[in-house]
Amino acid sequence: MYTCSEERMGDKIKTFSTFGDAGHGGITRYSLSPEALQARAEFVKRMEAIGAEIKTDDMACVYATLKGSEPDLPGIVMGSHCDSVKNGGNYDGILGVMGAMEVLETIAAEKIPHKHNITAMIWTNEEGSLYPPSMMASGVLCYDYLPEDIRYKFVHEDMLNSKSILDPTQTFGAALEASGYKGPEANRLNPKDYKAMFELHIEQGPILEAENNDVGVVTCVLGMICYRIKTYGQADHAGTTPMKYRHDALYASAKILQYLHDELDKLDPELVYTTGEIALHPNVHTVIPDYVDFSIDARHEDPKVIEQVVKIIENMPKEIVGCKVEYEPAWTRDTVYFNEELVGYVKESVEELGYSHQRINSGAGHDAQFCAYMMPTTMIFVPSKDGHSHCEPEFTSVQQCTQGASVLLNAVLKCDAK
Amino acid sequence: MYTCSEERMGDKIKTFSTFGDAGHGGITRYSLSPEALQARAEFVKRMEAIGAEIKTDDMACVYATLKGSEPDLPGIVMGSHCDSVKNGGNYDGILGVMGAMEVLETIAAEKIPHKHNITAMIWTNEEGSLYPPSMMASGVLCYDYLPEDIRYKFVHEDMLNSKSILDPTQTFGAALEASGYKGPEANRLNPKDYKAMFELHIEQGPILEAENNDVGVVTCVLGMICYRIKTYGQADHAGTTPMKYRHDALYASAKILQYLHDELDKLDPELVYTTGEIALHPNVHTVIPDYVDFSIDARHEDPKVIEQVVKIIENMPKEIVGCKVEYEPAWTRDTVYFNEELVGYVKESVEELGYSHQRINSGAGHDAQFCAYMMPTTMIFVPSKDGHSHCEPEFTSVQQCTQGASVLLNAVLKCDAK
Repeated sequence: MYTCSEERMGDKIKTFSTFGDAGHGGITRYSLSPEALQARAEFVKRMEAIGAEIKTDDMACVYATLKGSEPDLPGIVMGSHCDSVKNGGNYDGILGVMGAMEVLETIAAEKIPHKHNITAMIWTNEEGSLYPPSMMASGVLCYDYLPEDIRYKFVHEDMLNSKSILDPTQTFGAALEASGYKGPEANRLNPKDYKAMFELHIEQGPILEAENNDVGVVTCVLGMICYRIKTYGQADHAGTTPMKYRHDALYASAKILQYLHDELDKLDPELVYTTGEIALHPNVHTVIPDYVDFSIDARHEDPKVIEQVVKIIENMPKEIVGCKVEYEPAWTRDTVYFNEELVGYVKESVEELGYSHQRINSGAGHDAQFCAYMMPTTMIFVPSKDGHSHCEPEFTSVQQCTQGASVLLNAVLKCDAK
Repeated sequence: MYTCSEERMGDKIKTFSTFGDAGHGGITRYSLSPEALQARAEFVKRMEAIGAEIKTDDMACVYATLKGSEPDLPGIVMGSHCDSVKNGGNYDGILGVMGAMEVLETIAAEKIPHKHNITAMIWTNEEGSLYPPSMMASGVLCYDYLPEDIRYKFVHEDMLNSKSILDPTQTFGAALEASGYKGPEANRLNPKDYKAMFELHIEQGPILEAENNDVGVVTCVLGMICYRIKTYGQADHAGTTPMKYRHDALYASAKILQYLHDELDKLDPELVYTTGEIALHPNVHTVIPDYVDFSIDARHEDPKVIEQVVKIIENMPKEIVGCKVEYEPAWTRDTVYFNEELVGYVKESVEELGYSHQRINSGAGHDAQFCAYMMPTTMIFVPSKDGHSHCEPEFTSVQQCTQGASVLLNAVLKCDAK
């Protein structure tokens, strides 16, 4: 049983937090931006310093490999991303990269014997904050293995043409060429040359903290559905239309939202559902709204629960307060279960290390979720303070980050031993 | 008793509907735009043809006057606006201008004797759709008479600097200079040179049509309040945050909206209230909203009812579904009553003409409302089909428009006789 170094981990967190430092506690580090290239350079510098071999693929994913004693065996990879959302935090994504670095540094420092090549990897453009969509490189690398209804979003050519949301004259493809990190397609992660992928990540939710657990043994990424709900009324003048003649699409939407809460709350308590987006027309304070469109996103491990959610949406009133109600499925994804053997390695490692832990699922999407379609994959979670993520207050202590890296190290070594 | 000409009125409606014709039944005719200048040129041409004298003031309001037999007496003015909202209809504003033209044309054609000068007027930029705020010229012309808490919005210099919402490099002042309609300040409508102002307008609501009445004898412009209501939650990940840990600002707002409907519906049935505007942060379908801000606009003639509305807003829960609730008054205006004598002339005229009618108030704002602070003023309403306005389906028949003009004519003549 080995443990990683808190001192080294703390130094990495401090250093990487400067790349894209927004000056108020968090970072903005879009994929392939100058700030992200600084982070990549630091990764390469530190990995070369311990004798790792650096390769990149055609999506600019970076691989730093410590050769094993039987280098022809398929390798073990640990990866996450180094890009962030706008005004994001210092842990989402980059922790999985720093954890992978820490594992290799510990192996190098303590000369830990291993048969398989062990690789720390940066997945390019997980957030998709500058060049949509999110999980871009994992979508492209795993394309052949993804279900039809997901893969259509990740056609390689389309990804190269993805336009910057800040400057539509810039494309991801151009940023890729200019980055200095574009390598051959043959270097891509694949199930012939690699036997397993591990991703260490912050939980991005409040459960581990609330349950006072150090580590989450992740078993799956939740299945989800996303619908758009639309209410149609009549735009009229706010001052001249008596209440009895109104068809107020916003009031109709508020009623429907309450209906959804009432009905969905009767289902399993582990169901999560969210209306995060709303559009109102004409959105003028003196005009009764004639059209409202809002999102409803619902996630649960069990497809039976998701089916019940769909039934509730389908059974919504067709008309309410004089307004027509419609719905439209936007997209769905099935629950993705992680590899049981790898999940077992993680669990055994946590137990041996004596950290408190629990099984947990991931409500958020990760590169590991696409990778799981292609090869044995799993994830490890560490707590997020107050459950915050994708925002500057995002925080996980150095101790917690190091515990996560130690679990990663031991799980990888268990995988190596097989 | 005189009546106006349906044929002449129909011709005017047809002609003016071409200026800014958007190609699908309505018009876009921003103040001082090329389309609005076409409408002004048509007004001037037709008024000069009947021997009216044309003047303009420093806000480009246009005055076409038929001299009376005692031209030194203070004149009588009839006016409205010829600008529209984006994709507006063929009646809002321009009907009052065409009605005034029709009155002068009838007086000229039938050689109707009158002591006072009688003027048809175009108020500049009532909608404020291109250069905010609305009722700009009436705000400037009536500035000295307006209550403090309204007039601060209409400082002359600020109006000249008002930026185009389409092109912020353009100002209202520059459009004014370029229009060819800028005249001397001395030509402004004022209570020394004029004794009364009448405005014919479409109702912009469904009441006259529902009650099957031809004409509305307008008695006041409703008092109103506008508040902003804000709910504050916590932005968290839609997939990773169990329901019990959520502080969902949108759900809080939906609850507050229902509370407001429940409580306000207990007040007088003539109260109208509207939430027309909502802003949501961050408005991303995978993030629980942490901030929602929505408008509530409430209107009623009786200040006691408005006071009850304010009490209901002040008594909202301070916290709901784990979110803080706040409110902020945006603005208020008191009910503006029209001049009883002029209202009487309108009522007598409708009765003499044998049109069905009712007393009605205006829920919408009009130039007449500001003018009423400065001098005796009133309004006449004709029905709006299905209550629609500020949209392309806006419709009032030629017969109804002409009835409105006939009422205007006779009311003006009654005013002239005094």
